[in-house]
Amino acid sequence: MTRTVIESRSGTVTIGFDEPFCVIGERINPTGRKVLAAQLEAGDFSTVEKDAVEQVACGAMVLDVNAGVVYNSNPNPNETEPPLMRKMIELVQQLVDIPLCIDSSVPGALEAGLEVAHGRPLLNSVTGEEERLEAILPLVKKHSVPVVAISNDDTGISEDPDIRFQVAKKIVDRASDFGIPAHDIVVDPLVMPVGAMATAGRQVFALVRRLREELGVNTTCGASNISFGLPHRHGINAAFLPMAIGAGMTSAIMNPVRPVEMEAIHAANFLMNHDANGRKWIRFARVLDAVNEGTSFPAASQAASAGGREGRRRRRA
Amino acid sequence: MTRTVIESRSGTVTIGFDEPFCVIGERINPTGRKVLAAQLEAGDFSTVEKDAVEQVACGAMVLDVNAGVVYNSNPNPNETEPPLMRKMIELVQQLVDIPLCIDSSVPGALEAGLEVAHGRPLLNSVTGEEERLEAILPLVKKHSVPVVAISNDDTGISEDPDIRFQVAKKIVDRASDFGIPAHDIVVDPLVMPVGAMATAGRQVFALVRRLREELGVNTTCGASNISFGLPHRHGINAAFLPMAIGAGMTSAIMNPVRPVEMEAIHAANFLMNHDANGRKWIRFARVLDAVNEGTSFPAASQAASAGGREGRRRRRA
Repeated sequence: MTRTVIESRSGTVTIGFDEPFCVIGERINPTGRKVLAAQLEAGDFSTVEKDAVEQVACGAMVLDVNAGVVYNSNPNPNETEPPLMRKMIELVQQLVDIPLCIDSSVPGALEAGLEVAHGRPLLNSVTGEEERLEAILPLVKKHSVPVVAISNDDTGISEDPDIRFQVAKKIVDRASDFGIPAHDIVVDPLVMPVGAMATAGRQVFALVRRLREELGVNTTCGASNISFGLPHRHGINAAFLPMAIGAGMTSAIMNPVRPVEMEAIHAANFLMNHDANGRKWIRFARVLDAVNEGTSFPAASQAASAGGREGRRRRRA
Repeated sequence: MTRTVIESRSGTVTIGFDEPFCVIGERINPTGRKVLAAQLEAGDFSTVEKDAVEQVACGAMVLDVNAGVVYNSNPNPNETEPPLMRKMIELVQQLVDIPLCIDSSVPGALEAGLEVAHGRPLLNSVTGEEERLEAILPLVKKHSVPVVAISNDDTGISEDPDIRFQVAKKIVDRASDFGIPAHDIVVDPLVMPVGAMATAGRQVFALVRRLREELGVNTTCGASNISFGLPHRHGINAAFLPMAIGAGMTSAIMNPVRPVEMEAIHAANFLMNHDANGRKWIRFARVLDAVNEGTSFPAASQAASAGGREGRRRRRA
């Protein structure tokens, strides 16, 4: 049974075929967020702090941290990203105690993150590109951490799912050469927008099944890509996630501060028999009640968490 | 490729592995609807008329018609159901032109329905009970109609999915003895409430896959059973339906006047590549916009249908 173990200072999260779906919060990422990018360059981390706390309250089990700002004052990310990554991780770890996913295309930023991250973080990412394989896999081995493997290579992203499978297999094989086991590789088979490619959904469902059965690996994806450019895209996401979970997908990098998608995941966990007695569903239903009465999802989730802790304290007393 | 063809006076609906999910509207059924039951005994068919029109507007592709009222004035359904079934079907056929699903446990009511139904209705249902097999299969053969086969037998409903599979196989085999092909049998593997049986979801997903791969049959279910007794049950239904569709379920007997469930089905059809260019999704998104602005789902759906017809007329002119 494939189990990918990630750890924070005192917590452990297991991504696995017999585990609840692992929600990796995507919000701490300045890509496409101009305000956040400007804040980070100015040394203002208030949005990072808010995003960390809210995502955990809403149900993120792992937090992705991406420091990919191109500074106006210094356009060289090899110089700016490593110290920013270090700073952001230290800050997030002061606020929350869940495992982190260190996300960068700059190897130096991944190294900086690995130096300061508590426990056993997830590294994001290696691809099938030769240069990436040679740069990242030794880092994965040295720190004995799991890694996200994205199914593109030097020829780009193939629209052919068989080629994306072969790229994933190549990464698993190369990792094996470095002594990295398959259970420490979480493959992202790449989700295309269904509005642009009609077979995008079926491709992912079939690929997830194959990756699981033939390579024995856990899987992840940037879930919201599926609905890119479409109206009512959260409705597409909320059907895609249960279907992907039913096909065997075990995690996603996504926005957990969206109740529609989180409702779909809680329900899918219950239907996969990964929510004993529906306890989490029933608790989440109370959060939805509060949201329907006008409370924001993060606030309702925080209140439910506080209530849960208070309830546990009372029971102990 | 398994195709179950059902017809109305002038329309055809195909249930099949490569077709959009077939929504069978469940509303025209007095079971558990005291007001409707009293209306029917009093000869008032206004709710039947409303339910027929609204369900079709909201996206039902087939309408289930059940006349299972126990009259206060005459407690013998063998006497009261056949004429009521005839009357209800004639009425529904005057209002809408989509195929019907004739639903009764009274063989005489099924026969009465078959006499008046236009085209090629779906019969609902046969079970693995000896008496039902002997009563219903000759009727299916005589009228050359497809039939819903429910996976229970004289020993009741088994909690063991292997036994429910065997019951389905027995019905398919017995039907074959009568010369009824597997593609005219739509198996209901029976959906248990996940709140009472933790494996209920996984059982159905696995059974649907087996029924499709080993018996080559289409499948249906009473979808809302899955969420019986749970809070925010529409959220459970809205994850269950896409997961069942991903596993290969091809139809459900359900309430189409619920936008949450219908949104999940439209999205799942799109993700299964059964909605070319997302045309139906984009049209449905406009209905959701109207619902979000306060219009009822049936009214918004009716307006969209009228707009569609108007649009087509304008393009022709």
